[in-house]
Order: sequence, then structure tokens, then C-alpha cells
Amino acid sequence: MNGKDAWEPPGATARTRVHRLPENAVSDRAKVHAILDDGLVAHVGIVGDEEQPYVLPVGYARAEDDLLFHGSSASRLFRTLAAGAPACATVTILDGMVLARSGFESSMNYRSVMVIGRCRVLEGDEKVAALERISDHLLPGRWADIRGPSAKELRATLVACMPLEECSAKVSEGGPDDVEDDLDRPVWAGVVPLIRTWGTPIPAPDLRFDLPAPEYLRSWDVKGG
Amino acid sequence: MNGKDAWEPPGATARTRVHRLPENAVSDRAKVHAILDDGLVAHVGIVGDEEQPYVLPVGYARAEDDLLFHGSSASRLFRTLAAGAPACATVTILDGMVLARSGFESSMNYRSVMVIGRCRVLEGDEKVAALERISDHLLPGRWADIRGPSAKELRATLVACMPLEECSAKVSEGGPDDVEDDLDRPVWAGVVPLIRTWGTPIPAPDLRFDLPAPEYLRSWDVKGG
Repeated sequence: MNGKDAWEPPGATARTRVHRLPENAVSDRAKVHAILDDGLVAHVGIVGDEEQPYVLPVGYARAEDDLLFHGSSASRLFRTLAAGAPACATVTILDGMVLARSGFESSMNYRSVMVIGRCRVLEGDEKVAALERISDHLLPGRWADIRGPSAKELRATLVACMPLEECSAKVSEGGPDDVEDDLDRPVWAGVVPLIRTWGTPIPAPDLRFDLPAPEYLRSWDVKGG
Repeated sequence: MNGKDAWEPPGATARTRVHRLPENAVSDRAKVHAILDDGLVAHVGIVGDEEQPYVLPVGYARAEDDLLFHGSSASRLFRTLAAGAPACATVTILDGMVLARSGFESSMNYRSVMVIGRCRVLEGDEKVAALERISDHLLPGRWADIRGPSAKELRATLVACMPLEECSAKVSEGGPDDVEDDLDRPVWAGVVPLIRTWGTPIPAPDLRFDLPAPEYLRSWDVKGG
């Protein structure tokens, strides 16, 4: 069949339960974590005046059962998150295109997690630890190499933490699921995978030392983007 | 320097103007179109009860100055879009990691477009034309090969159109922009590009004919995911 997962969502509530294609709902906590650990950018939604939603891309990391975000203390998004407003963070990793014999059954393979809730602001040691965690997730191995944050930089940075309490995940994988009548059509069907790789590191033009790209870059996993 | 773009947003209003790093704002209409044409998935935000935003991934296409979405007529997202509720669609393409000498200056290279507005529902010939356009964008060359939508499938599908009237775009590109004091640190700095490719097509297990993968797959561009 379609190879779809079929668990009940973990932190699912009436607000996050997967209604469409519930057979694609994922509940295993480890799988939710794995999707979040494979992504790099979350799309974070907030609500402005006149019930207008805004969705912005934010780098993130997961630490235990929290999502961690960092951004400018002055940004509208981070001021809104810091105020404890209702927010939503969605991470989606597109894995490929599913070519069925009809447009209706054609689809995408993807893994996605949606988290809703309110953020709290991290301060002091918690804040610095979260910045290290975000760096370790986005740029594995880098933290030990670079200058730590100054007091001024810390003031300019806001770190928000959103608990993975209300969340849902959806995974669509496998091949097309055409209706029987379409199977005799003489058209190719299958999956075209989408693959991500890290390219050759490009040294900064202002690099003052004849340094090779760091060894830890070789260990970078291909993440979901 | 940082190679940042610095145009004024095109359909920008007070609601979509780029406040953070305005030097990264992009206004050239052709560039906004190019970003949208390079993406495959939009993250669409709507607002539910109690000012709770929800953000969901949706395949899309651009046609002229409209974004086109299709989904299940029964889904909460598409019922909300069809009702003309305020919505936001954001497309982000992550292009690489920027490794600076400090965590504070480390960042990501990306291209992103945010569109806010209300959708209208397409019907009849407009609806079928939009489905073809979405197929041509997500699966170039495929439409001519596959069975067109049945009346029942069309009823089960909702097509929503969001005008590119209020939108903003941001592009971050180029290398790290470290402060002078950090340039003497003996640490490598630069960019690690993120590259997407289409993998080898995987035939469906229920393929009844010994057909090769279609020729048009060879022409698929590498899109932004």
C-alpha cells in the first residue's frame, strides 16, 4: 500500500488532531523528535491586528520536549512570542514527488510537525545554553570554534522556548495509490526523491589565515532544510 | 560585503514592510516571482478560535500575480481559506549556512516571500486551469501524461487563489559579515551551500508496463523545496 504511518498523535488535542488523512498521523514521540531534529527552519505563525496571521521562517533547535528559537529582541515576531501570544511552529521536510496515474492521486512525500502553544523567554544560563543548543543543531561542531556571545549581543538576542505539549505530526511516504481503473493506463508511475546535500564550503573573502574548512563539516548530516 | 539586496518591497504595505534587516528586502517583482517559482511548498497560516494561529504546508504554484493552492474541500485549512478569512502564505528556500567568527553573526542564506491576504475560490474552467498550472509547476511535463480530474474529484478538491497584492520578500546571500575585531581570530569562516537534487525515479511496485521513467523528468529543475 502507501506505506503510510498510522499512529495517534502524542501531544494531540482537539486543536492539533490530524483530520485530513488521519492514517498519516504520527504519534511516536521519537518520530516527532526525529522530524524536528532533521529540519533546520520552522515556519512560525503569529496573529497581528484584525486577525491577520503572519508566518515567518526561523532557525530552531529541539532540546528534550522544547523548541528553541532565537532572533532579534527588536523584531515584531520575537516581541510577540515574548509576550506569550498564541503561536504555531511548523517544520516540513519535503522528501519527494509522488507521480500517480491521475492528478488527483499525485502528491508529495513529506514529514511535518506542527506545534501550537505559547513561548516563554529564556534568560541567563538557560539562554546561553539554548544558543549553544541552536548552534549545535544548525552548525554541528561550530560552537567550540567561535567567539561566545557578548553581553551586548545577548541583549540584542531574544531566545524563546515553546513546549512540545500540543503538537501533531504527519508523514506521507511510499508510492502512488491509484484506483484500480487507472492501473491499466500505459503511463509511468512512481516517486521522484528530493535529495539535499551540503555543497563545497566557500571561504569568506576576508579570511585572513590559510585555513582549511573545518573537519567537523564532513560530519554534517544532510538535513531537511 | 554581504551581497545583500536592497530594494523596496513591491506590494509592500505597513503590514508587510520588512522591518528587520530592511537592507535584505527585495522589491523587484521579477525577483519575487522567481523565488515563488523556485519553491514547491508554502506554509499557510490561518487563525482559529482564541486567536490561535495554525500553519500548514501546502503545495502551490504562481500564475501571473496570484498564488494558487489546491487541497481537500473538507479540510479545515481549505474551508477557512474558502471563507475568505485573513491568511498568510510564506515560501522559504534555504540556500546555505553562513559560518561567521561569532555565533551572533552566523546566519543562514535564504530567499523568502510572505504574502498576506484573502483567497477566492476558483470554479469551472478557472479551477481546471489552476490545477493544470499547479501540476505544471510541481510536476513539469506530467499533466499531458495523466488522467484529467473527474467530476467527483473536482468536487472533492478546492482551489484557492491568493493575489500577490500585499507581499514582501527577503533575500540573504553572500558570506559572513564579521566585526573587524573578530577577523584576526584563527577560525575558518565562509558559507556551506545547501544543494537540492532530484534523485533516481523509483517505479511504483504496481507498475503494469515495462515503461522507463518519462523523458520530461530529465528536464526538472532543481527547486527550492
